[in-house]
Amino acid sequence: MQNSEHRQDKPLVLAGKTYQSRLIIGSGKYADFQQNLAALEASGAEMITVAIRRVNLGQNKDEPSLLDVISPEKYTFLPNTAGCYTAADAVRTCRMARELLDGHKLVKLEVLGDQKTLYPNVTETLVAAEQLVADGFDVMVYTSDDPLIAKRLEEIGCIAVMPLGAPIGSGLGIRNPYNIRMILENATVPIIVDAGVGTASDATIAMELGCEGVLMNTAIAEAGDPVLMASAMQKAVISGREAWLAGRMPRKLYASASSPIDGTFF
Amino acid sequence: MQNSEHRQDKPLVLAGKTYQSRLIIGSGKYADFQQNLAALEASGAEMITVAIRRVNLGQNKDEPSLLDVISPEKYTFLPNTAGCYTAADAVRTCRMARELLDGHKLVKLEVLGDQKTLYPNVTETLVAAEQLVADGFDVMVYTSDDPLIAKRLEEIGCIAVMPLGAPIGSGLGIRNPYNIRMILENATVPIIVDAGVGTASDATIAMELGCEGVLMNTAIAEAGDPVLMASAMQKAVISGREAWLAGRMPRKLYASASSPIDGTFF
Amino acid sequence: MQNSEHRQDKPLVLAGKTYQSRLIIGSGKYADFQQNLAALEASGAEMITVAIRRVNLGQNKDEPSLLDVISPEKYTFLPNTAGCYTAADAVRTCRMARELLDGHKLVKLEVLGDQKTLYPNVTETLVAAEQLVADGFDVMVYTSDDPLIAKRLEEIGCIAVMPLGAPIGSGLGIRNPYNIRMILENATVPIIVDAGVGTASDATIAMELGCEGVLMNTAIAEAGDPVLMASAMQKAVISGREAWLAGRMPRKLYASASSPIDGTFF
Amino acid sequence: MQNSEHRQDKPLVLAGKTYQSRLIIGSGKYADFQQNLAALEASGAEMITVAIRRVNLGQNKDEPSLLDVISPEKYTFLPNTAGCYTAADAVRTCRMARELLDGHKLVKLEVLGDQKTLYPNVTETLVAAEQLVADGFDVMVYTSDDPLIAKRLEEIGCIAVMPLGAPIGSGLGIRNPYNIRMILENATVPIIVDAGVGTASDATIAMELGCEGVLMNTAIAEAGDPVLMASAMQKAVISGREAWLAGRMPRKLYASASSPIDGTFF
Repeated sequence: MQNSEHRQDKPLVLAGKTYQSRLIIGSGKYADFQQNLAALEASGAEMITVAIRRVNLGQNKDEPSLLDVISPEKYTFLPNTAGCYTAADAVRTCRMARELLDGHKLVKLEVLGDQKTLYPNVTETLVAAEQLVADGFDVMVYTSDDPLIAKRLEEIGCIAVMPLGAPIGSGLGIRNPYNIRMILENATVPIIVDAGVGTASDATIAMELGCEGVLMNTAIAEAGDPVLMASAMQKAVISGREAWLAGRMPRKLYASASSPIDGTFF
Repeated sequence: MQNSEHRQDKPLVLAGKTYQSRLIIGSGKYADFQQNLAALEASGAEMITVAIRRVNLGQNKDEPSLLDVISPEKYTFLPNTAGCYTAADAVRTCRMARELLDGHKLVKLEVLGDQKTLYPNVTETLVAAEQLVADGFDVMVYTSDDPLIAKRLEEIGCIAVMPLGAPIGSGLGIRNPYNIRMILENATVPIIVDAGVGTASDATIAMELGCEGVLMNTAIAEAGDPVLMASAMQKAVISGREAWLAGRMPRKLYASASSPIDGTFF
Repeated sequence: MQNSEHRQDKPLVLAGKTYQSRLIIGSGKYADFQQNLAALEASGAEMITVAIRRVNLGQNKDEPSLLDVISPEKYTFLPNTAGCYTAADAVRTCRMARELLDGHKLVKLEVLGDQKTLYPNVTETLVAAEQLVADGFDVMVYTSDDPLIAKRLEEIGCIAVMPLGAPIGSGLGIRNPYNIRMILENATVPIIVDAGVGTASDATIAMELGCEGVLMNTAIAEAGDPVLMASAMQKAVISGREAWLAGRMPRKLYASASSPIDGTFF
Repeated sequence: MQNSEHRQDKPLVLAGKTYQSRLIIGSGKYADFQQNLAALEASGAEMITVAIRRVNLGQNKDEPSLLDVISPEKYTFLPNTAGCYTAADAVRTCRMARELLDGHKLVKLEVLGDQKTLYPNVTETLVAAEQLVADGFDVMVYTSDDPLIAKRLEEIGCIAVMPLGAPIGSGLGIRNPYNIRMILENATVPIIVDAGVGTASDATIAMELGCEGVLMNTAIAEAGDPVLMASAMQKAVISGREAWLAGRMPRKLYASASSPIDGTFF
């Protein structure tokens, strides 16, 4: 009497490497590197993104480096271009990261529009993405939830497209699941929601829509107990993935209703 | 720079027994007892609710009993009064369950209004609850999300109050989190959302509101892959609980907004 | 190429009188009677509800009476039992109103549960409704959005059933349109949303669901400009009614999608 | 005891002309020109947008022209570039319109991404907007709800920016009020929601957010009764405007709650 069909799983592969975890966490706003490590361990994430302009990975030899606390042998480091507001700045920052990290090609590109809203600047992002792909980088790219821009970033050769759920640091959740749905309908690379998650159910919803993963920073780092929230997020992402694979029951006004709710009521 | 406070955990205790799992699953709509057992195991639930009028626990000696497949030593059985539309019927059914199960006092009371919508009949529920409590039962009670009715059921002596998220079998999720919130503000017994969960994020949201647990049947039994959905639900409930304990970040229009969103925008 | 069907209009008839306006406004929280009158005129309402325990309709001969400002010749006065927390109190208050208003039989019954939440006490409401109907009153009755209680109030003989959209004074809008929908499916008397409206679109949504009218007080009286908000509400109610009669277009993910959205996505 | 402040009204001025109506309707999908005229009259709109590639305004001398039925003396015609998928096509179409309409400079620019979703192509839109503004057109521009793109279109010199509520023909309403809010915070030209409205309350909500106007086509043309829906939309837009001007009451969990709801609950 099942009404739904379940789906086949496929692993998350990024730049040739397979990940068991579909959660990527950040390295900003933590009390210190130790808390960041504790959250990382609690989250089960295998990848951590780092703002190359803000976090010391050896740029400054006189201060402690995150690499001393979080091992690049154990975790994939994803350098990002946070703080860049032009394509040129973002490209320069990625090259700096590559040099610093001995030829590391994987980067997360983000080009923001202004310091107030931190909304992505999609036209500069397109320019930067083209240059970085041409320059041999494996580009995971942060963008708005515009389905056409998402598709163009894929066509340019980005290896993952990362639409926002809501603005960075807003905690508003997936504000427009319809756009995420449209992005997913057309995608052939992994779609990973980046930004906007505020609590566990937001991450679950992203995965239930069919996304391949979720990246978050503030939701963990600014929770009352970041390490416990990291643990919640690990389960939230797996839970949403399993629910999507399992295939949910239909929605009805009540059980005996003859047809699923078709959106024409409200 | 954390903006939120985390909360202290306290265990879920029902009728003197402490439960690690905050998920209760059902025994209807499964393909067979084996599938039910597999879902139960995947869900991590320690309690299973059984419609005493529909599921064979020994009433019919010529047919297989659920007790042969799911061990009452290992799991707490929660007999329920599904199919009862009057207080009298519900009380009679609970007494039958007690006899059948050698004095078992724990029951889930549900008195429904009609077969079409399966919405709870709160006035009959109040009558039945009084009689059952007076008769020595430990009553967990299914009800609407009316905060006054919920409080009265607690005052009558029910050991847990179980408001709906949405009608039984609808899969609509928590339709009115505001009412659940009002119920929680006044409760001194465990509040467990019962009915309405359709997918994993619904369960997570119930727990993020501060509920003590979630009961569900159709969301698992009518998923495309019930056992996988049961696994999703286990994580969804724990995830929501951990997020509630951890304390979520505030919501803002964007990160630099000076105040959290105050509901006056929209 | 129209996809929808329009509906036939039928007039709003209450206690044998036909109303052109489907909006009912209140008489609490205004700066003074003059502002109340101005709002009433701007709203186009033909009926005004008055808390018989709070507003002077002649009970106190030494103070100004609302009847001196708002003419009972021109407007239907709907005495209500605001401030009553038991059936007995509500019944007594209605009888007092009838005496005061020379045999006026039309009343709005409300029995609330507590002063904090102002949520309706449905069991006391049922008791009072039975007594008032037996006593010859034309009872319009405020209640929760519980579809069974709504139906019972109709069966008792109430001439209109008035479910809340959200708690009195909350301004939260129609929190659970699904329940309102269930109430409408079974109703043979007018269903009028009472309480919860916070802004114009809330009233429009109530009417688009198929309700026969809307009653509101705080949304107008506590707006920045009550008279202008009253004008907005007049149009909001008519607009929602016309949209419901006209029959809305279907919802789709995008125009070329082959089927309407069926609620299984999100 | 008012909690809110009302706002000062200011007229809607587009290309030097003041409009009383804040509703703009379309000319597609109607049964015939007569129905379109009837809807226009019922809507109270003073401006009608016309797809210059699809609707005969004299391009084809052998067929009836819309101008024979809807008077350009009485209504402002807003030629649009529906059906254009590149900047070059859109610019060419606007020039054709100007020629056809004797130097008419007012146009609505839309450059879409694909025929399936009709989502706007924002990069081509930027290119076309620059060329059209340089060429002396008064450009009202359809775009996504990306706040940075909206601001750039304003900076280019467009006289009104028209973000979508949802994709053309979807009827999904304002899917992301947060982005519309962000657009409004920064705008100095009129912001007019274009596309996505499905029913009256959607238009009201757009206006309650503070938009200067609403443009719609399918919601009227594909309603069961287009002329009645046009009447509903007239009131919906005025209602929403008045509510925004009046200043709505705050939202609370219940009336006695000490603070408005701050979005941290849910």
